[in-house]
Amino acid sequence: MSTIPGFWAVIPAGGAGTRLWPLSRENFPKFLLDLTDSGRSLLQATVDRLEPLSNGRMIVVTGAAHREKVLAQLPDLDPADVIGEPARRESMAAIGLAAALIERRDPEAIIGSFAADQLIDDTDAFQKTVREAVRVAATGKLVTIGIEPTAPSTAYGYIRCGNPIPDTAAHDVQQFVEKPTADVAEQYLATGEYRWNAGMFVVRASLLLDLLERWRPALAKGLRAIAADPDTLETAFPELEKIAIDIAVAEPAADAGLVAVVPGSFGWDDIGDFASLAAVTPHQDNAPVLLGKAEAIHSLDATGLIFAAKDGGKTYAVVGIEDVVVVDTGDALLITTIERAQDVKKMVDHLKADGLKRLL
Amino acid sequence: MSTIPGFWAVIPAGGAGTRLWPLSRENFPKFLLDLTDSGRSLLQATVDRLEPLSNGRMIVVTGAAHREKVLAQLPDLDPADVIGEPARRESMAAIGLAAALIERRDPEAIIGSFAADQLIDDTDAFQKTVREAVRVAATGKLVTIGIEPTAPSTAYGYIRCGNPIPDTAAHDVQQFVEKPTADVAEQYLATGEYRWNAGMFVVRASLLLDLLERWRPALAKGLRAIAADPDTLETAFPELEKIAIDIAVAEPAADAGLVAVVPGSFGWDDIGDFASLAAVTPHQDNAPVLLGKAEAIHSLDATGLIFAAKDGGKTYAVVGIEDVVVVDTGDALLITTIERAQDVKKMVDHLKADGLKRLL
Repeated sequence: MSTIPGFWAVIPAGGAGTRLWPLSRENFPKFLLDLTDSGRSLLQATVDRLEPLSNGRMIVVTGAAHREKVLAQLPDLDPADVIGEPARRESMAAIGLAAALIERRDPEAIIGSFAADQLIDDTDAFQKTVREAVRVAATGKLVTIGIEPTAPSTAYGYIRCGNPIPDTAAHDVQQFVEKPTADVAEQYLATGEYRWNAGMFVVRASLLLDLLERWRPALAKGLRAIAADPDTLETAFPELEKIAIDIAVAEPAADAGLVAVVPGSFGWDDIGDFASLAAVTPHQDNAPVLLGKAEAIHSLDATGLIFAAKDGGKTYAVVGIEDVVVVDTGDALLITTIERAQDVKKMVDHLKADGLKRLL
Repeated sequence: MSTIPGFWAVIPAGGAGTRLWPLSRENFPKFLLDLTDSGRSLLQATVDRLEPLSNGRMIVVTGAAHREKVLAQLPDLDPADVIGEPARRESMAAIGLAAALIERRDPEAIIGSFAADQLIDDTDAFQKTVREAVRVAATGKLVTIGIEPTAPSTAYGYIRCGNPIPDTAAHDVQQFVEKPTADVAEQYLATGEYRWNAGMFVVRASLLLDLLERWRPALAKGLRAIAADPDTLETAFPELEKIAIDIAVAEPAADAGLVAVVPGSFGWDDIGDFASLAAVTPHQDNAPVLLGKAEAIHSLDATGLIFAAKDGGKTYAVVGIEDVVVVDTGDALLITTIERAQDVKKMVDHLKADGLKRLL
């Protein structure tokens, strides 16, 4: 798989992953974790997938508090290419700042933005899809990658595909739609016209900023001004508008007929909670997913997911319990079920209300 | 409640409590534990209940490996009254040895034997029942205390009551019966004639040994010989027959019409597993039983039993799980359900087979 000329990878590394507590913490968020015991964190795996395509042309945008941890995980990156946001300003400011920095280095650059906290299981297919997306982006489109749905998920937004674009694998995007109800998701899948919105965007950097200029001129100007004088980042960035890229650019651009979707048929998951983590992690039939210090776990008639603390020498014994979720990090032990995995967020809120901030 | 003249308390402190693992260990068995966070271990609570009746006349019989731990928990006892068995020889040898030692000090003594690992919730009622049992035992009967069944338990043996004995609260015992099936237990309760066998025996020490002499003469002689020369304990005790008091004496004595049962209407439980522990421990409605470092436990929509390790500073978060059992001892974490509480024994067997003896 050869480098794509003029292609820059942008990796927004944000999001707390609250429903993955206690693995994920405010000070050590999901993208820094190797959730599936693959040997690489989600961030590192994201870089590994993109580096063969971008050949060193890569910018990571993360919270200033996480910048040192990101650098420690990515020793091969030039520290100048890891931007620490002095305040959280959502995805448009993060991706837009990377675009503005890249635009100055290469006015023709095509960027591909891929969140640092997602799991992809077929790197070859992913890279082929990105290559095609770059080819379509070069024609002057904002390109998104639409994931083939494997289930009527209510956890993701959807992309409604329109007409095919000749000589490409892409379709026009008719519409981006919000997370649906289960019934509506079923209808989407039945039509065959909808794909999951994985928040992946491939676009000429200058086009992204020009489109932003059309609908959010102050934000576009602000981003280009910071790129022109990076010393102003600390003071100017916190003043930028807080808005998602979908709302600022992708949705209005789709309405204007400027967005294309390239289908991605690789496995993709945003691992939003432990149910999702259990589903994507290999394990033996009728046995739980074992993570962490797996050799310390003993189970009889149990299924679900068990994460054993890596330190501490504890032995875990699970007897006769289905779809259980057990996550031990030494300082905290979570016990819930696959079915209630979403409610981990409620527990985090409860602990916060109880003043246990050091654990969050 | 005044002392009962001539009454000696005998406390067999044995049994591993395997189904209470990891709280209960081979080297720290159930009777040493304060399972209900009462401030006193089961052994200490047993002594506390009996001491007002026996006024220092008490013998504890335990495994030699546990003798130091028993002495540490019972600093007021004369160390000479805590017998360490050099080998496990079941209940007849343990209780019989105490009887033989007591018989030499007071040939008219009446002993009451009460296992060290049971929970009783109404000390007044218990003491009144023992007093009545001693009164009946003085007439030359082997007396047992029959617990009023609160449910058709299949975990206990039953006592079938016969005719009332005039001028006492006692009945003749028609028969001791083994742990029944659920259907049979239902039938027992319907007749009103059956009581739980709690393994409590009140009898003149010399009568117990004379009855044993009738059915197991070698064992009776062996016990009396050790009592006559306690220096032979180490060598002679391991040679004694391994047999339960029920089989050696109580059942044949019942067949011979020599056994009486005094009804006990106090709450009683042998806390055989975590389901039983959960049932007897006070807790808020629709909330789990909290034990150990309870202030470290946070739960949402959970019921069951959670025992938090007392050391280690861990926070426990349990979300959306009914009738769960979570027991953390620092070195081991057990997770099961109330329904599967009996199967903790299977896990202990599994860990033993896996060579994890240090945890057992």
